[in-house]
Amino acid sequence: MQTSQGLAVPPPDAYCRAAGMNHPAPMPEDALDRLRLARTEGVGAQTYLRLLQRFGSARAALAALPRYGRGTLVPPPMGAVEREMAALAKLGGRFLFLGAPGYPALLGMLHDPPPVLALLGDPVALAPRAVALVGARNASAAGRRIAEELAEALAGAGLTVISGLARGIDAAAHLGALRARAHGAKPGAGRTVAAVAGGLDQPYPPENAALQARIAAEGGAVLAEAPLGTAPLARHFPRRNRIVAGLSLGVVVVEAAPRSGSLITARLALEAGRELFAVPGSPLDPRCRGSNDLIRQGAHITESAEDVLAHLPEAPREAPLVEPRLDWGEPAPPPPLPPAPPGTSPDMTQVIELLGTAPMPVDEVVRRCHLSPSVVQAILLDLELAGQVEMLPGNRVALTGRS
Amino acid sequence: MQTSQGLAVPPPDAYCRAAGMNHPAPMPEDALDRLRLARTEGVGAQTYLRLLQRFGSARAALAALPRYGRGTLVPPPMGAVEREMAALAKLGGRFLFLGAPGYPALLGMLHDPPPVLALLGDPVALAPRAVALVGARNASAAGRRIAEELAEALAGAGLTVISGLARGIDAAAHLGALRARAHGAKPGAGRTVAAVAGGLDQPYPPENAALQARIAAEGGAVLAEAPLGTAPLARHFPRRNRIVAGLSLGVVVVEAAPRSGSLITARLALEAGRELFAVPGSPLDPRCRGSNDLIRQGAHITESAEDVLAHLPEAPREAPLVEPRLDWGEPAPPPPLPPAPPGTSPDMTQVIELLGTAPMPVDEVVRRCHLSPSVVQAILLDLELAGQVEMLPGNRVALTGRS
Repeated sequence: MQTSQGLAVPPPDAYCRAAGMNHPAPMPEDALDRLRLARTEGVGAQTYLRLLQRFGSARAALAALPRYGRGTLVPPPMGAVEREMAALAKLGGRFLFLGAPGYPALLGMLHDPPPVLALLGDPVALAPRAVALVGARNASAAGRRIAEELAEALAGAGLTVISGLARGIDAAAHLGALRARAHGAKPGAGRTVAAVAGGLDQPYPPENAALQARIAAEGGAVLAEAPLGTAPLARHFPRRNRIVAGLSLGVVVVEAAPRSGSLITARLALEAGRELFAVPGSPLDPRCRGSNDLIRQGAHITESAEDVLAHLPEAPREAPLVEPRLDWGEPAPPPPLPPAPPGTSPDMTQVIELLGTAPMPVDEVVRRCHLSPSVVQAILLDLELAGQVEMLPGNRVALTGRS
Repeated sequence: MQTSQGLAVPPPDAYCRAAGMNHPAPMPEDALDRLRLARTEGVGAQTYLRLLQRFGSARAALAALPRYGRGTLVPPPMGAVEREMAALAKLGGRFLFLGAPGYPALLGMLHDPPPVLALLGDPVALAPRAVALVGARNASAAGRRIAEELAEALAGAGLTVISGLARGIDAAAHLGALRARAHGAKPGAGRTVAAVAGGLDQPYPPENAALQARIAAEGGAVLAEAPLGTAPLARHFPRRNRIVAGLSLGVVVVEAAPRSGSLITARLALEAGRELFAVPGSPLDPRCRGSNDLIRQGAHITESAEDVLAHLPEAPREAPLVEPRLDWGEPAPPPPLPPAPPGTSPDMTQVIELLGTAPMPVDEVVRRCHLSPSVVQAILLDLELAGQVEMLPGNRVALTGRS
């Protein structure tokens, strides 16, 4: 079985039957290794993906780690990872691993998909077509009403409504979707999924703790990329926003001020080839400037669920900048270049001399240096883990300026 | 001298120096004939234009009238027309004749330009580039404020602001433009022009009589297609709306409900190749549905004067459907077919048999019937004046179904 990312899925011989879970799904055999690699400080989502692409498994990548990052990439002890897994099971949650069954297919299409997600609630909520509703925390009463009505109608049409559990528009969107489900009269109604910035045991804002519990209990799901115990910090929110966008075929922005987080979500959605919708508002309301601006830039003007349904595609557009697909689930051929500390091989020197701080397509690097693509990929991974280059969407690469 | 319609302009040997007029402009020598033809019941704007195109002058057209319309096209007595002219001069107004100096060039590009306009105020207000602001009569306070601020900024940028003197958005637009001019500090500020549905002496709504007087007194102008004494009726408003659109390079719609008059103005503007702008508003406000819908259909989303200035062209786009230009100011060659009552010539029968109730381009009629273009034009005019065919934009023609 292949996922949308072309990742091979392990046989379903390992299950995690967490308390109260309706739809258990197989966990990969090497779940602990994957979680350990994902929890290694300095190994972000992109690096995680590239390590698995290069070494074929989390275990092999862990074994190779000491050779990178000047010895700073130290995985947590196995015991810490086992404790995290047990703690999540105790909460009634489970993990979803990139490339394994149950991992949301659309999210896996990002260039930096979360290596692992902790989930509370029903994983089935992630299966239907999904649309995100996001907007201002300090939303007007009218904006909250619009979000709630839109979410209710979209959930009523069978879609999953994604949001970020924040105050204002986010909370209204979750509530609207829950309302569509609340009445037994709507058996086909959709669900709602909250992506949160901190750990699943750190609901934020605190006043939405009850809402988070309701979502998990009433057929929806709550997802966190951060480990349990992580308090949500400012830097976590853009990463949360990419999950909101990544889970969705389209993002609807209701009341967003200029330079607000909702506009980050909108930009991430566009970068991932997702459809963009915005609810218009009065030019006199600063909370509508950002959303009106999105309409000016081409977002679908949205007054009702029909406007969303009319333009929500079956699949994401091919993103303007997309990562190449590599089957890291199947064992990769042994790397032709033995991993070595940066700066020691003539081939590596040749590659470095080609690069600049302006992004260059990896294909062009390959063409110019007369090395094989796999050799170049190996060199670039070495350089990336050493912090000397940065991999960018569209399979482009640039020097970071550090050496 | 040729106007934008290719109409030859008579020599400026006749002047109307009405009381208080700053910028007298020449009146055509045959002003009384033109007014008489224009005031003939049954001779609308399109028929007026085609009669002059065919007969070369208003006098020749008047002489030919008895042969058309089964004798129902009876011009008013010359005395009535002389009295109207004197009454307008007494009010301090003057006439602008299609094809004569001072007639607004953009308005003359319509397929049905008003044959004559009565003007109060300063004709110079018609010279600069103009933009229309229109919208709901029952506008919200916020909508009126937006209209007033937009108009003030657009007039401040030197544009003439056109509107319809109605309650709500129209009045706010006029007031905003007047405010831009009120301060001597803004010598380059634009003016405002009101197109009214009834006669100039019948301000409507009555509470805007003072505003009409202010516009005429403070550098602006008030225009009426209808004769003095005409009370504004429902059927006059769409004709007023085409003048609002026709005077303008672009139309800005602020708060318009579905099926409102503002949307008629918007449609007429598009048909005439003018740019369309709309101010967004909350989906919860029914007064914004029409304007939001215009944005959905491609109108420029407008939050500030900058949005208008960025998209206001130097000249109208070539309209999708435009009338052919004919130089009716120069004496036309004598009609090859003597005007005759409909239904008597074999050529006419041949043309009628080609036509249907679906519009057909006149060029195609010419091609199919093997008559010369001028013979076909003459036959079609006969049929139009007899009420048997209707001339449509794009030089197309259709049977009315009457005979």
